Amino acid sequence: MEKVNLAQKLSLFNDYYNPRIVGELNNQHVKLVKLKGEFVWHSHEVEDELFLVIKGTLRMELRDKTIHINEGEFLVVPRGVEHKPVADEETHILLFEPATTLNTGDVENELTRKQLEKL
Amino acid sequence: MEKVNLAQKLSLFNDYYNPRIVGELNNQHVKLVKLKGEFVWHSHEVEDELFLVIKGTLRMELRDKTIHINEGEFLVVPRGVEHKPVADEETHILLFEPATTLNTGDVENELTRKQLEKL
Repeated sequence: MEKVNLAQKLSLFNDYYNPRIVGELNNQHVKLVKLKGEFVWHSHEVEDELFLVIKGTLRMELRDKTIHINEGEFLVVPRGVEHKPVADEETHILLFEPATTLNTGDVENELTRKQLEKL
Repeated sequence: MEKVNLAQKLSLFNDYYNPRIVGELNNQHVKLVKLKGEFVWHSHEVEDELFLVIKGTLRMELRDKTIHINEGEFLVVPRGVEHKPVADEETHILLFEPATTLNTGDVENELTRKQLEKL
């Protein structure tokens, strides 16, 4: 059993939209991801997804509104809800979601990451 | 769907070892709790528990060692592992754990909180 330091783990990678697994519990994963620019519209059929902003601002576009999530804030996107993460500046996010969650949900394209690195 | 600001939620209560629910997803709860002083030795039979330190230092006593968890760090305590949280100064924690988790686990005493407030 070892503690995890978020800043130390974040220092280990620099690419965007490529989540790393930094914790596992109750069949859920704790992931860290760096964002910059636009992701893709997608939804997750059976997984609710938590986005906690560690640094920067995450602009979560939904079909009916946009939510700006700042450092120290989180948003839960329920299963089935279409969303598109956007970050104008580099933004660091902690994700909490079931181990089954695929980053692009119901969409598969060049951004899809099937095998995530564990840090 | 609304974002949650951790500092704003933490400003709504001042008692210790009384977790509040601030988010729900995938049958898991996101809780906030303020600690000061010693909690009790306990374990959770079927729940792994994540402690993310928002402010202060959490001293997690285990039977074979003690782990100091500082701001920006988290620890996962697996099910079945006895632990005793201690905070010398006021410390703020984000908990992530199954909705079934009782704060004192297998122990029931005056610190047990069966009905948690949702903020």
